[in-house]
Amino acid sequence: LIHDDLPAMDDDDFRRGKPSCHKAFDEATAILVGDGLQALAIELLLDKLPLTMSAQKTVVITKELVSANGFMGMISGQSLDLSELKNPNLSLDMLSFIHNLKTGKLIVACFNMAILASSDVGHIESEALKKFAYEIGLVFQMQDDYLDHYAPQSVLGKGASSDLLNEKVTFASLFSKDTLAEKINALYRDAIENLKPFGEQANDLIALTETLRLRSNGISE
Amino acid sequence: LIHDDLPAMDDDDFRRGKPSCHKAFDEATAILVGDGLQALAIELLLDKLPLTMSAQKTVVITKELVSANGFMGMISGQSLDLSELKNPNLSLDMLSFIHNLKTGKLIVACFNMAILASSDVGHIESEALKKFAYEIGLVFQMQDDYLDHYAPQSVLGKGASSDLLNEKVTFASLFSKDTLAEKINALYRDAIENLKPFGEQANDLIALTETLRLRSNGISE
Repeated sequence: LIHDDLPAMDDDDFRRGKPSCHKAFDEATAILVGDGLQALAIELLLDKLPLTMSAQKTVVITKELVSANGFMGMISGQSLDLSELKNPNLSLDMLSFIHNLKTGKLIVACFNMAILASSDVGHIESEALKKFAYEIGLVFQMQDDYLDHYAPQSVLGKGASSDLLNEKVTFASLFSKDTLAEKINALYRDAIENLKPFGEQANDLIALTETLRLRSNGISE
Repeated sequence: LIHDDLPAMDDDDFRRGKPSCHKAFDEATAILVGDGLQALAIELLLDKLPLTMSAQKTVVITKELVSANGFMGMISGQSLDLSELKNPNLSLDMLSFIHNLKTGKLIVACFNMAILASSDVGHIESEALKKFAYEIGLVFQMQDDYLDHYAPQSVLGKGASSDLLNEKVTFASLFSKDTLAEKINALYRDAIENLKPFGEQANDLIALTETLRLRSNGISE
């Protein structure tokens, strides 16, 4: 996110209501802190991995996190974001594909790591969790685009949307306001549906989903 | 190195005789490729780790690489480089400390990883290898500063030294030309001395050291 806000990328002056890192400090600091946090995330994971695991599991779990951040994940997503989102004929499939690379893969990786670490998640449960993670990632971006287009600036805690200023294709430019709100609500319902088989065990994930859905009060039922 | 060349950092237009990444492409690409390569380095290591190792060794070896690149290594080194090297009263100890964080730790990490992966490196041998790695890292930087100051631009394969343009403290600003050349040659001899106990087993490391020492033909005996 710190690199995403840089002038060479999205050029965003605010993040969550505060000056973005390169504004609060400078560009060099923002580049270095982004680099350092990437390493720190992996260090934290390595510190938390139970050493009772097999070496193979240790490697596979760490690769989940590292790959989601790498050329096969976030990096390609951000690169396509910069090169393709200004194409006014971009398809819905391509837009979803780019956002899945950019943020979806990392969200799915969080679930994959937990599934790999656990010894008692069956195939059906694991597929349901991954589908939940994919859908949460996608709907999060759809709602982000909705809020960027329709929520007042005071609610967003940042300046005018850089996507709007840069004339990027977003879910809000592909659909009308009402259609997008419907799709968002439907996707949230679908996501929650995946959690049904887990009963009360999924309460935390349901609560998280509700927190996401209600953020910024931007989406009406 | 790609991030190091960015305008917000050292602002170098050339690297090894070719336009640096942000010149050949653009800044966004250079930021993303640097990020992606950091992930790729860890992925390559994870792919090469023998799964017959214990999980603990797997974790400790991976942490060696990740930490050397993180806030406790390269990131702090580069940050201090940007903030401290313009102080004309910077001490030799502080300059060496900064370069050790910036590049030395990563070179030592390469040796640490191999030592950790091996089951038959004794304490004395392991200390000798780490000292060799530390000294090679330091002398590499001293020679870099020497070449930047005294070698013709055509030999360096890059434009005028950004360190010179930015009036940074370097080993070449702390010592006269002859004294620095003597120190470099002495440190190379010291480094090689560490390898004596290994006999012919160290031939590749000795050859590598010679390649470094003779690079750019900038240092006379």
